Amino acid sequence: MVAGAEIVITRTVTMEEGVRLESGAVLKPITVAYETYGAPNARRDNVILVCHALSGGAHAAGWHPGASKPGWWDDMIGPGKAFDTRRYCVVSSNVLGSCYGTTGPSWLAPEAGVPYGARFPVVTIGDMVTVQAALLDRLGIGTLLAVAGGSMGGMQALQWAVSCPGRVRSVVALATTPRHSAQQIAFDEVARRAVMGDPAWRGGDYYGRATPDAGLAVARMLGHITYLSDRGMARKFGRAREAGGAPAYSLDREFQVERYLDHQASSFVRRFDANSLIYLTKAMDYCDLAAGHASLADALAPCRAAFLLLSFSSDWLYPPAQLEEVAEAVRAARTGGEPEVAHHVIASDHGHDAFLLEHREQAPIISRFLANVVQ
Amino acid sequence: MVAGAEIVITRTVTMEEGVRLESGAVLKPITVAYETYGAPNARRDNVILVCHALSGGAHAAGWHPGASKPGWWDDMIGPGKAFDTRRYCVVSSNVLGSCYGTTGPSWLAPEAGVPYGARFPVVTIGDMVTVQAALLDRLGIGTLLAVAGGSMGGMQALQWAVSCPGRVRSVVALATTPRHSAQQIAFDEVARRAVMGDPAWRGGDYYGRATPDAGLAVARMLGHITYLSDRGMARKFGRAREAGGAPAYSLDREFQVERYLDHQASSFVRRFDANSLIYLTKAMDYCDLAAGHASLADALAPCRAAFLLLSFSSDWLYPPAQLEEVAEAVRAARTGGEPEVAHHVIASDHGHDAFLLEHREQAPIISRFLANVVQ
Repeated sequence: MVAGAEIVITRTVTMEEGVRLESGAVLKPITVAYETYGAPNARRDNVILVCHALSGGAHAAGWHPGASKPGWWDDMIGPGKAFDTRRYCVVSSNVLGSCYGTTGPSWLAPEAGVPYGARFPVVTIGDMVTVQAALLDRLGIGTLLAVAGGSMGGMQALQWAVSCPGRVRSVVALATTPRHSAQQIAFDEVARRAVMGDPAWRGGDYYGRATPDAGLAVARMLGHITYLSDRGMARKFGRAREAGGAPAYSLDREFQVERYLDHQASSFVRRFDANSLIYLTKAMDYCDLAAGHASLADALAPCRAAFLLLSFSSDWLYPPAQLEEVAEAVRAARTGGEPEVAHHVIASDHGHDAFLLEHREQAPIISRFLANVVQ
Repeated sequence: MVAGAEIVITRTVTMEEGVRLESGAVLKPITVAYETYGAPNARRDNVILVCHALSGGAHAAGWHPGASKPGWWDDMIGPGKAFDTRRYCVVSSNVLGSCYGTTGPSWLAPEAGVPYGARFPVVTIGDMVTVQAALLDRLGIGTLLAVAGGSMGGMQALQWAVSCPGRVRSVVALATTPRHSAQQIAFDEVARRAVMGDPAWRGGDYYGRATPDAGLAVARMLGHITYLSDRGMARKFGRAREAGGAPAYSLDREFQVERYLDHQASSFVRRFDANSLIYLTKAMDYCDLAAGHASLADALAPCRAAFLLLSFSSDWLYPPAQLEEVAEAVRAARTGGEPEVAHHVIASDHGHDAFLLEHREQAPIISRFLANVVQ
């Protein structure tokens, strides 16, 4: 870690009353892991909720003691950064179903006394928002200045506008979609089948035993391809071989891109719970902001928040057209005089990962947008 | 099968002398499965070699006795069709390393007396062409009127222009590439790891035992996503649920697209050998027409054949730009007066699968092209 870096810790809050899920099931108790950066002002109207993507957690910024790298959006959150902690109080929590401190399938099921495994109830993006709202209640925070996130985090940000339209003054959604398409569902289903087809998965009851590493690795390798762009991969790896020179004519990993995927997958397998991958991809597949409404415009109509939508030219997992649909739906419900609705398509070769990498491009846009919301 | 349909059978030829592979290894003996449709003329200058894709075989057209469906390109090969068997003699053979009658990893290794498994030598697209050329020698066929194929079959067609430039009067390549890109290698690597990570794979020695069905199914599900387009999947499946209506809130397959992938994978697992998937994807990953040459133009310069290149607007697995690169490379090596070099991008929502489906669009183009070559 770097000298002078901000040390942060993850806190938890347990809600004995639990939460009623979209499915009708009640999950209780629940524990939520969260971090905060910066401080609320006297009116408590400077709070920004940041929502993480599939593999993220509450640790969005700063450094944990002894860590070798900072939180997942440290480029964006901190003093003088896009989410400027000298002005704003940023709250970040781990989503329901994940494996970084918030209740998920690896937790002991009360009464049963064994981990939930596949008996954990299916959760939705809406359920994640319900839990985040309950956390903010506990923290004494009413209306948010902004809710922000990319990918699955962007789905949560958009869901806030539908679920709690009066509680958000602005929505910042990056590299995301108002609903999972057939192709997006299909990629997730391949990932789930890779995990569930691994004999070590054992119907989800692998805790305390060998974990389904081979299946989870395949799922993550596939994920990584969808996070990068064709052109970005060509530029970064091309057809380069690890050893250089002549073909090995073997079945082993040989091309640099193969070793990259293997490395990424090995690292993920060590840090992520396979059941959480199943539950979080399922939550994304259920994502459809317009469900239960006449249209997407109808779903978003009650929300008078400012919207900043950022997509990336080479993101083929969540193509810019999906966020343009959100922009059009929000605009369709407005009559003039409401806050800004902007959709920027940022030119990038970084594919879906761009929202984690293109901070130089996106930071000034977000910074200006938030300043306008404050005014 | 339909009344009056043409019954065809697969023949085999065994070459005791075997074949020397690009790797330097000698594989012997080898058996090649092939079919022919139509008859050679007196000068034997009306022969077209058709090359199959990953999951295909020699059975490209007509019906096997009692079969429920015809060969894989029956829409394109037959009397009055694009490859008109009243005028042309079409030869189709199963590639080296496959599992439909030509020598591959499931064959008994001589002397060892057990199936090759992962001891089968790595083969390349060039090796497939070497075997096809040897088969044509046996059949007494010198110069080909055309060599044609899509996807991996298109790689073989292009490889013919590099390996046997004087032996092809025309090349018809569809939905293919002169070299596998990092993204294409990455998808193949995920497929291979899915198979090789299945404990039933047993290092390739699963013959006579349980087969690595779970891994092979994951590989095929992934393949199918890459064969379709985002828009095509949206149109065909959208977010439709099998049962219709409300979400099931379970981990089971629920969306129609999930059931489609499962059905396709189950069918593939019953008919394809997992080791062949490994070897054929590896062969595609090694595909680089320019390897050993100063450039792609240099590799293609000796071939004075006519070229017809067909790509499809929504094919993101083998995007049109990859075949445009071939068109430019061939044109760069020409001085005028040589045969036609045409690249058509056909508008289609069918993605990579379009070359198997868009016969109404592609048949007249191919038909006219071949008629010009004959003149």
